[in-house]
Amino acid sequence: MSKPKVVILGAGYGGLVTAIRLQKQMKASEMDVTLVNKHDYHYITTHLHMPAAGTDHHDNARVAIADLIDERKIHFVKSTVSQILPEEKKVVLGDRDLSYDYLVIGLGSETETFGIPGMNEYAMSIKSINSVRFIRQHIEYMFAKSKMEPKRKEYLTFVVGGAGFTGTEFVGELADRIPVLSRTYDVDPSTVKIINIEASPSALPPGLPEDLVEYGMEVMRRKGVEYKLSTPIKECTPDGVILGNGEFIRAGTVVWSGGIRGNSLLEQAGFDVQRGRVKVDECLRSYQYPDVFITGDCSIVMSPEGTPYPANAQIAVQQGYNVARNLLYAVRGRDLKPFAYDFKGTVASLGRGEAVGLLKVKKVKGKFAALLKKVIDARYLYLIGGIPLIWKKMIFKQKTTARNYHVPN
Amino acid sequence: MSKPKVVILGAGYGGLVTAIRLQKQMKASEMDVTLVNKHDYHYITTHLHMPAAGTDHHDNARVAIADLIDERKIHFVKSTVSQILPEEKKVVLGDRDLSYDYLVIGLGSETETFGIPGMNEYAMSIKSINSVRFIRQHIEYMFAKSKMEPKRKEYLTFVVGGAGFTGTEFVGELADRIPVLSRTYDVDPSTVKIINIEASPSALPPGLPEDLVEYGMEVMRRKGVEYKLSTPIKECTPDGVILGNGEFIRAGTVVWSGGIRGNSLLEQAGFDVQRGRVKVDECLRSYQYPDVFITGDCSIVMSPEGTPYPANAQIAVQQGYNVARNLLYAVRGRDLKPFAYDFKGTVASLGRGEAVGLLKVKKVKGKFAALLKKVIDARYLYLIGGIPLIWKKMIFKQKTTARNYHVPN
Repeated sequence: MSKPKVVILGAGYGGLVTAIRLQKQMKASEMDVTLVNKHDYHYITTHLHMPAAGTDHHDNARVAIADLIDERKIHFVKSTVSQILPEEKKVVLGDRDLSYDYLVIGLGSETETFGIPGMNEYAMSIKSINSVRFIRQHIEYMFAKSKMEPKRKEYLTFVVGGAGFTGTEFVGELADRIPVLSRTYDVDPSTVKIINIEASPSALPPGLPEDLVEYGMEVMRRKGVEYKLSTPIKECTPDGVILGNGEFIRAGTVVWSGGIRGNSLLEQAGFDVQRGRVKVDECLRSYQYPDVFITGDCSIVMSPEGTPYPANAQIAVQQGYNVARNLLYAVRGRDLKPFAYDFKGTVASLGRGEAVGLLKVKKVKGKFAALLKKVIDARYLYLIGGIPLIWKKMIFKQKTTARNYHVPN
Repeated sequence: MSKPKVVILGAGYGGLVTAIRLQKQMKASEMDVTLVNKHDYHYITTHLHMPAAGTDHHDNARVAIADLIDERKIHFVKSTVSQILPEEKKVVLGDRDLSYDYLVIGLGSETETFGIPGMNEYAMSIKSINSVRFIRQHIEYMFAKSKMEPKRKEYLTFVVGGAGFTGTEFVGELADRIPVLSRTYDVDPSTVKIINIEASPSALPPGLPEDLVEYGMEVMRRKGVEYKLSTPIKECTPDGVILGNGEFIRAGTVVWSGGIRGNSLLEQAGFDVQRGRVKVDECLRSYQYPDVFITGDCSIVMSPEGTPYPANAQIAVQQGYNVARNLLYAVRGRDLKPFAYDFKGTVASLGRGEAVGLLKVKKVKGKFAALLKKVIDARYLYLIGGIPLIWKKMIFKQKTTARNYHVPN
């Protein structure tokens, strides 16, 4: 009798944690597990706002999968998924097909532009190592360009669409970065504008109490961030954005962090989706195909109150734990255990040394919140790679830069 | 009786050395000297190829004028010259006019494109701190962009037009830089192309003996540089270059180092010019206006053989010495001393640890030539700023990078 085949698509939070928990708890004889990922590294999405702004090296936001995975238990395939065929229990990769008994889909999100014209074409978004390296270089390129064409003030106007979690964390870092870039490029920092535009009437992650929002916006404004709230973006052009009221903001840089949707492969595979995401059962399985588990941004998990939980890293990690356990239970013939989300709270960074957050019972802000944010980051690194990974990514972190001048002496 | 007024336009090699020699030798009561420059720093043009490629920090290629000039003897005015009126003995700056008894014009060069369509619009050139910061960022931006659109191979094609002194030195650094950028951006270095295109049949600075040219080209080819000699560029487009034979090379980056001409302000002022440069008398004065000295790339100095000397830093520095002395002689009522160029030789860098050169009697190459190049660089820094400047720019040099990540711990 052959071993049950488990295929995990995507090494984001959900997929990677599933793989790591499996390799910890399974016997090699129990299952044949394959992890498929586009890159040979896992990236820490919650850290991407820093390399995007250039306040940290992108290598501190990724981990080589080979450093996390025990190849004796998990086969790793670096490939891009081109099709999922749930009826045939098969996935089509760029270079081969894989059949499965159990499938875990953790393929992450795509940018949701809500149909705003030009947003896909002309705005950048914070979603991968490649995209944040690009944003970082684009920002610095604008500083270099502004010195070549000093009349083009728009090169130093940075528009961020969306003032939710990602938008806020990015804007906080970007504001911290401006003085450094201004010095390097002999630019007067007062000529640089950061405009954070948000359709809803409030900035900062939804759900924060009003006093924390006010505190956070005050921190940001002191750093030079300008907010435009209750202001939808009507169109993005190569030269800037057109607002709902018709106003045109000329800008050399537009970063869109206004929304995400599930990976489009799910809809193409015939799953019932809402904004690309699949509503899952209490054990995180597709209602249509119970041998398919779905995690992270591709899944919709309903709370006991009947509302969907927001997609974030925290829930994806917990889903990974649950899926790994249920895969073991499934192959061992035990009853699956329903997923129960334990929301521990949320902390949003506002740049160097500042954050705001809401824990289960407690509001946090300022330096303490910023420290707490670091603890949360460290906790995740510990979970996937133990103390050595904290050491490598947070303590002896990569400080050399992309530029990395050789000094020929 | 008021002091004679000397105005020096431009703090490049010729103008700066004139100012520095004057302040060393003059009494404050003898002349009223004003140095006018667009930036508040002098840049070391012969070093610009390194920051252009990103192999050194641009701050190592510039010196604050305030660090070199004694304000008790030389007034420094940071301003852009908009007009020279030699009939009225006046120069018009952005914000004021200056009248003079003696004028020194050292306004440097502009890019000569020989009328190649698109070259001014779409090619970059190595000519200032601003332009090399832009080139450096452009190169790195192309690496970042190539990861966003992997099918666009042209992002990793770098075309350099002109394989003379500047072109060669830049290409040598660029080739050294590719492995570093490839690692940083997860790019396969074999997909990167550097193509050096030259209309004449030979690469490397003119005048080098054939065996040195061969040695140099071999060094460059081993680093991955492809040469296209006897190949004029017919047109530069936003997407690449069209060669004389009609071939189109698609490239995300075109750097033009094919030629220079004198500053166009001289022609506008009514000086007789050849490619923007003014033929000067044996004391480096305009034949039309003997109270105007012209140095560096704006001047044409004829050799005793009746051919013009090539424009370079070496001759400009020697011109500065001569002009300063003759200004002193003029105000002291002595006869001026004719300029005699002492050509010491030339050394062209081929990147890290490699160079070729021709001294008065001796050919040099390899590590020795590279070391000699450093001695030449150090000698110039000593000349303008003494030991402390060598210390600052070559020993305890700026190693922090433009990126300069803050590490929030």
